[in-house]
Amino acid sequence: MQATLAQLCETLEGHGMKPELRGDATRVVHGVATLEDAAEGQVSFLSNPKYEKMLAETRASAVVLKPDVKAPDHLNLIRVADPYAAITALIVRVHGYRQHRRVPERHACTHIAESARIGENATIHPGVTIDDDVVIGNNAVIYPGCYVGPRCRIGCDLLLYPNVVVYDDTVMGDRVAIHAGTVIGEDGLGYAPIGEKWIKIPQIGYVELGDDVEIGSNCSIDRATLGKTKIGSGTKFSNLIAIGHGTQIDENCLFVAQVGLSGSVSVGKHVTMAGQVGTVGHIRIGDNATIGAKAGVTNDVPAGETYLGAPAIPITEAKRQFVHIQRLPELKQQVKKLQKRIEELETRFTAESGAE
Amino acid sequence: MQATLAQLCETLEGHGMKPELRGDATRVVHGVATLEDAAEGQVSFLSNPKYEKMLAETRASAVVLKPDVKAPDHLNLIRVADPYAAITALIVRVHGYRQHRRVPERHACTHIAESARIGENATIHPGVTIDDDVVIGNNAVIYPGCYVGPRCRIGCDLLLYPNVVVYDDTVMGDRVAIHAGTVIGEDGLGYAPIGEKWIKIPQIGYVELGDDVEIGSNCSIDRATLGKTKIGSGTKFSNLIAIGHGTQIDENCLFVAQVGLSGSVSVGKHVTMAGQVGTVGHIRIGDNATIGAKAGVTNDVPAGETYLGAPAIPITEAKRQFVHIQRLPELKQQVKKLQKRIEELETRFTAESGAE
Amino acid sequence: MQATLAQLCETLEGHGMKPELRGDATRVVHGVATLEDAAEGQVSFLSNPKYEKMLAETRASAVVLKPDVKAPDHLNLIRVADPYAAITALIVRVHGYRQHRRVPERHACTHIAESARIGENATIHPGVTIDDDVVIGNNAVIYPGCYVGPRCRIGCDLLLYPNVVVYDDTVMGDRVAIHAGTVIGEDGLGYAPIGEKWIKIPQIGYVELGDDVEIGSNCSIDRATLGKTKIGSGTKFSNLIAIGHGTQIDENCLFVAQVGLSGSVSVGKHVTMAGQVGTVGHIRIGDNATIGAKAGVTNDVPAGETYLGAPAIPITEAKRQFVHIQRLPELKQQVKKLQKRIEELETRFTAESGAE
Repeated sequence: MQATLAQLCETLEGHGMKPELRGDATRVVHGVATLEDAAEGQVSFLSNPKYEKMLAETRASAVVLKPDVKAPDHLNLIRVADPYAAITALIVRVHGYRQHRRVPERHACTHIAESARIGENATIHPGVTIDDDVVIGNNAVIYPGCYVGPRCRIGCDLLLYPNVVVYDDTVMGDRVAIHAGTVIGEDGLGYAPIGEKWIKIPQIGYVELGDDVEIGSNCSIDRATLGKTKIGSGTKFSNLIAIGHGTQIDENCLFVAQVGLSGSVSVGKHVTMAGQVGTVGHIRIGDNATIGAKAGVTNDVPAGETYLGAPAIPITEAKRQFVHIQRLPELKQQVKKLQKRIEELETRFTAESGAE
Repeated sequence: MQATLAQLCETLEGHGMKPELRGDATRVVHGVATLEDAAEGQVSFLSNPKYEKMLAETRASAVVLKPDVKAPDHLNLIRVADPYAAITALIVRVHGYRQHRRVPERHACTHIAESARIGENATIHPGVTIDDDVVIGNNAVIYPGCYVGPRCRIGCDLLLYPNVVVYDDTVMGDRVAIHAGTVIGEDGLGYAPIGEKWIKIPQIGYVELGDDVEIGSNCSIDRATLGKTKIGSGTKFSNLIAIGHGTQIDENCLFVAQVGLSGSVSVGKHVTMAGQVGTVGHIRIGDNATIGAKAGVTNDVPAGETYLGAPAIPITEAKRQFVHIQRLPELKQQVKKLQKRIEELETRFTAESGAE
Repeated sequence: MQATLAQLCETLEGHGMKPELRGDATRVVHGVATLEDAAEGQVSFLSNPKYEKMLAETRASAVVLKPDVKAPDHLNLIRVADPYAAITALIVRVHGYRQHRRVPERHACTHIAESARIGENATIHPGVTIDDDVVIGNNAVIYPGCYVGPRCRIGCDLLLYPNVVVYDDTVMGDRVAIHAGTVIGEDGLGYAPIGEKWIKIPQIGYVELGDDVEIGSNCSIDRATLGKTKIGSGTKFSNLIAIGHGTQIDENCLFVAQVGLSGSVSVGKHVTMAGQVGTVGHIRIGDNATIGAKAGVTNDVPAGETYLGAPAIPITEAKRQFVHIQRLPELKQQVKKLQKRIEELETRFTAESGAE
C-alpha cells in the first residue's frame, strides 16, 4: 500500500520511534528497496556506514538514516535512531506479508481422511494429503505436496509451504509456518547393536512445536524415541537444520542454516546458533547463550556465554587461542634464538672455567 | 499390546536376557515412557546413572534397571544387565513398529506406468508416480508424493515415506526404508572444464542400496558417473547426508546427520561416522573405523581406528594436540621466563668476566 | 549410440584432440564403463596412474589413456593427452544426456493457473502446480511434485526434477536444471528483535538464476529481503547447499555439497568452494578464488587465492600452521631441555662465582 512520507513517519511513531522528516512530506512511495536498486517512488535506508557513499547516487524518493549521517541536499530524509528497525516497520506498512492465493473448495486431487477435522477458512491446495484423525485449527494454508500424518494436532493459522512432510502424532501450536521440503517427525537414528547389525528401535515419541515457530526449508526434526522432541514458542530456524531425537529447544531461539543438534540436547531460551554449528548429545545450552559459526559443542554451555571453536570454548579464550596459534612460528624462532644464546653461554662458560 | 510384568520378563528371556522381577508380576502395562513422562500403566527404564534421582518421583508402574541400582521400595522393578537393550525389546513388545494405513486400490491420482511391475500386497498412495519399466517386489508401502524413475529394480518390503525421489536405474534390495524428502540417484557434480565454463558429463551410472538399508530424511545420494554408488546391506543413515558419486559404503555402517562424503570414497564394514563429518574423495576408510563429529578426513583411515579433527588424525593424538594448544599461553610464559634468566646469566657472566 | 573406435577418434578430433588409435579400428563399442566394470563392447579409460595395474584384467574392448602408459598388447588403445576430457566426450557420444519421457497433454492432476503462460513443446507431469502469472519458455520438462509460485519468469529449456519448489517471483534464464527436492526463494532468516521475541520482516526480494545454472538436490536458496539473491550464469551446485538472503554469486562457480553461505555475500566469477565450506555474511570472495573443504571464511578473500581452515587463511599459511601445531609436543620438549640447560648454567655459575 502506497503512503506519503508523512504517513510513513506516523507508522514509525506508532512503533515508538521519533522520526524527523526532512524534505517533501507529501511525496508518495509505493515500495521499499536497497539504495542501489531503489527507483523513483521507493524509500530506502542506510544502516551500515560502509554504504554511505551510495547516498550520492541513489534514486530513492526518500532515505531512512541516522540523525548524524550527512546526505545530499536533494534527498528526502527520515532520520531515526535505528534505521534498520524503522525500515522493517516500513516494509510491513508498504508491502505487508505474503498473500496466499485462496483455493475455494476441496479438489479431487486433495486427499483428506474422513476422520480428519480441519477448521474454518482453510486453503488446502490440490496434491495435499491429510491422514486419519488429524485436527487442524482455523485459517490453515497448506500448499501442494504436503503430507500431514495420522493423529497430528495443530493449532490455528498454520502455514505449510509446498512439500512439507509432518509425520504421525506431531503437535503444533498456533501460527506455525514451515517452509518447503522440511520434514517434521521422521524416525531418529535409534538402533540397538546385535553383533555388527543394527536392530531398529521403534521411535514411539513425537515432535511438539510451540506457537509462532517458523522453520526454514529442507530441515529435518526427529521424533523422540520416547516422549517428545520440542521446539519452543517463538523459535525460528533457517534451512537445512537437523535436530536429533528427544532434543528440547526453549522459546525464542534463532538457528542459522545447517545447524545440527544431536539427540537429548537441552537448549534454553533465546539461544542463538550461527551457521553449521554442531553439538554432541545429552548436553545443556543455557539461556541466552550464543554459539559461533561452525562451533562443535562438546560440553554444557553456561547461560549468557558465547562459545566458539571445535571443541567449543568461551569466545575470548578461542580468539586468544587463535592468536597464539598464529604466532607459533614466532615462538619457534624465539626458542631457537634462546637455544643459540644458551649454547654461547655454555661455550663461554666452559672456556672461562677451563682458562682458570 | 498390553502385557503383565511377568510377560515382559518372558520377552526378555526370549532375547537371552536374565531379568529379575521385584514386585507385582501381574501388574499390566500398556506403554513405555521415560522416567519423567511415565504415567500409571507404563514401564520405564534407568540406563544413565545421571538420572538415578528421578526414580523417587516417577509414576511408572515398573522400571527396568541394573541389578545394583538402589530404588524406592514401592516401585516394581525388572533388573537386567543391559537396561537399554531390554527397553528396546519391550518397546517392540508393547508398541511394535509403525502401522501403515492400507490404501485398497489404485487411485486416479496415482501414476503407475503400464510397463511397471509391482508385487503383491502393495500400498501405493495417491500422488505417487512410478515410471516406465520399474520392478518392485511384494508388500511395498509408498507414501504420497514419491517418484520412482524409469528402470528402477527394487526388492520386497520397500517403505518410502512421503516425497522420496528415486532417479532412474536405482537398484535396491529387500526391506529398504527411506524417510521423507530423501533423493536417491541425482546427478553428481560431474563437469569438464572448458576455459572457465563447466560442461556437463552425463552421469550414466546408478545407485545400489543393499538389504535392510534405512536412510533418514532429506539425504542426497549421487548416482555414479560410471558404474555405481553403493550403500551396503544393513547400513543406516540419519538426515541431511550427502554421498558423492561413485562412493561405496559397505555393510552395517552408521552415519549421523549431516555427514558428507565426496566421490569415489571407499568405506569398510561397520564404520561409524558422527555428525557433520566430511571426507575428501578417493580415500579408504577401513572396517570398524569410527570418525568423530565434525572431523575432516583427508587421508585413508586404517581399520578399527578412531579419527578426529580437521584434518582428521588418530583420536589420542587429536586430544593431546588439543591439550597442547590449550597450554600455549603457558608455554609462551615459560619461554619468556627462560629468556629473562638467560639475560641475567649473560649480564652476570659479562660482569664477572669483565671483573676478572 | 554405438560407434567404431575409428568413429570415436573422429569425435575426439572434433573436440580438438589428437587421438592415436592402436588396434582394431572397426571394433564396435556401445557403452562406456570403468576399467573394473567394463564388459566386452565397452570402452574404458585410465586417467589416474594409481589404477594402471587394472589394465591387465579389464575386459573393455578399448581403453583411452595417455601416450606414455604401458598397456598389454591385446588391448585396443586410444591414446590422448587428456584421457579424462576424452572419455567425457565419448560418454556424450555413446550415451548422450538423460532422455526425458514425454507427457503428451495436460493431465487432470496437473494444476496450471489460467494466467500462466507456458511455451511450446513442454512436458509437464501430473502432480505439478504452476501458479498465477508464471511465464515459462519453450521445451520445459517439469517432473511430478514440482511447484512454481506466482509471477515466476523462466526462460527456455527448463528442467525441474521431482519435488522442486520455486517460490513466487523467481527469475531464471535459459537451460536451468534443478535437481529433486531443491527449494528456490524461501524466506530468509529475517527477523527484527523486540525484547526476546523475533518479529518477521517480510522478505520482499526474489531469487535470480542466470543461464545454464545447474543446482543439485535438496538445496535451499533464500530470496532477498530487498532486491535479489543471484546465482550467475554457468554456476553449478552440488547437493544440500544453503545460500542466504541477498547473496550474489557470479558466473561459472562450482560449489560442492553442504556449502553454506550467509546473507549479503558477494562471490566473484569462477570461484570453487569445496564441501562443507561456510562463510559469514557481508564479505567478498574474489574471482577465481578457491575455498578448501570445511573452511570457515570470516573475511574477504582476494581474487585468485586459495583459503583453508576455520577461520580461513591462505592455504600455505594454513598448512604451515598445521605443521607447527603437529610439532607442539616437540617444541615443548625443546623448551624443557633449554630450561634444564639454563638451570645447569645457573648452578655452575653460582658455584664458580662462590668459589672465587
